Amino acid sequence: MSAPGKLYGVGVGPGDPELMTLKAARILARVPVVAHFRKRGQMGHARSIAAATLAPGVEELALDYPLTNEVAFHSARYEQALTAFYDDAAARIAGHIATGKDVAVVCEGDPFFYGSFMHIYHRLSAAHAIEVVPGITGMSACWTRAGAPITYGDDVLTVLPGTLSPEALLARMQVADALVVMKLGSNFGKVKAALAATGLSERAIYVERGSMVGEVIMPLRERTDEAAPYFAMILVPGRGRCL
Amino acid sequence: MSAPGKLYGVGVGPGDPELMTLKAARILARVPVVAHFRKRGQMGHARSIAAATLAPGVEELALDYPLTNEVAFHSARYEQALTAFYDDAAARIAGHIATGKDVAVVCEGDPFFYGSFMHIYHRLSAAHAIEVVPGITGMSACWTRAGAPITYGDDVLTVLPGTLSPEALLARMQVADALVVMKLGSNFGKVKAALAATGLSERAIYVERGSMVGEVIMPLRERTDEAAPYFAMILVPGRGRCL
Repeated sequence: MSAPGKLYGVGVGPGDPELMTLKAARILARVPVVAHFRKRGQMGHARSIAAATLAPGVEELALDYPLTNEVAFHSARYEQALTAFYDDAAARIAGHIATGKDVAVVCEGDPFFYGSFMHIYHRLSAAHAIEVVPGITGMSACWTRAGAPITYGDDVLTVLPGTLSPEALLARMQVADALVVMKLGSNFGKVKAALAATGLSERAIYVERGSMVGEVIMPLRERTDEAAPYFAMILVPGRGRCL
Repeated sequence: MSAPGKLYGVGVGPGDPELMTLKAARILARVPVVAHFRKRGQMGHARSIAAATLAPGVEELALDYPLTNEVAFHSARYEQALTAFYDDAAARIAGHIATGKDVAVVCEGDPFFYGSFMHIYHRLSAAHAIEVVPGITGMSACWTRAGAPITYGDDVLTVLPGTLSPEALLARMQVADALVVMKLGSNFGKVKAALAATGLSERAIYVERGSMVGEVIMPLRERTDEAAPYFAMILVPGRGRCL
């Protein structure tokens, strides 16, 4: 029986394949198995970013999410389905490792920052060798492309999911220096109302598909729709000690 | 007269040179001038990280900080000295650009996340072509190396500088899901007291030199000293929706 393989959680960054790290590219060019999360029937975003980097003939392990991002997010049924999905995905990955093959799970952005890979990591880290490679986050790509340095000196940065309640959004925004709001989608109207109520709208920047084809960057006040893509972001740059 | 050169703000990541992006490596391998911030008499950290990537014979532009990180941080004299320093640094960089040479300012971590380069960017972006390349942040390297996924689901991430007052630290920590505390140094005792008062000490992880030689990772409760290096960090991972 061969020695077990090693598992890699590889951050491939926010979209532009050149924003992958040298380490990610080195690992992806030689692993025999690449695993990737995706919505059923679509190529996953991380897999697309990694496409040109993978070894010819690499074996693919597609991990199909059971549900979409925004349906019945807090229901017990949703959580049960996702838990079963991660159990199964971890078992499939472990099966490949057991045959002696190294496996890389490609992760959009950074694997340990709101990443699906974290649920694999928790299931397998006690019994398997795992190496995680950090990646450029989507928010970093967005503030870079927007030409908007995000934090200065003593600024506090707050990263908020738009899924929070209006009250929770308001409370966090009231004490914000610099702010990143993620997971917009159908939460966009609620988030915009909270920013308006806390006087942050004028400083806010809307970014869609940062560093990717179809990139949109504009002052938030010019984005008048009530919905936005789920992976769009709002940035409010800090103002502390600009020398 | 030649066309002016282009300015690059290049994030070189947290320490391990392999955590540089492909884009950063490509740009640094060909620019004729590399600028780097440093404490007088020392090689800057970003310059060290980039060492093996730079073109042979590259021209070096060292930007020597006038003061150390922690002396009289809020004094008018400190601010004046830093403002004059950034004015001079921007003028020196602009001088090289004017001769037609491309200049890369190497930046530890991400240029737009608490970076000195931001002060150069504000001075030169109106009149010069500038491209910024995001980098892996120090905090991302720290949570990766600590094996500590930082944010799940609806977690709010708060990034706090340890330089804040005890009251400000307490107020932010009381509403924290996931927390990163930076700029420890002589603030370490104050930060530890605030974490203890808010019940976060037991979940807190201390990380020093994440991804570098001499890396230290331990539960915060085992780190009993009253001071820590300025660039050490404390992480409190979120606990939201672990499936």
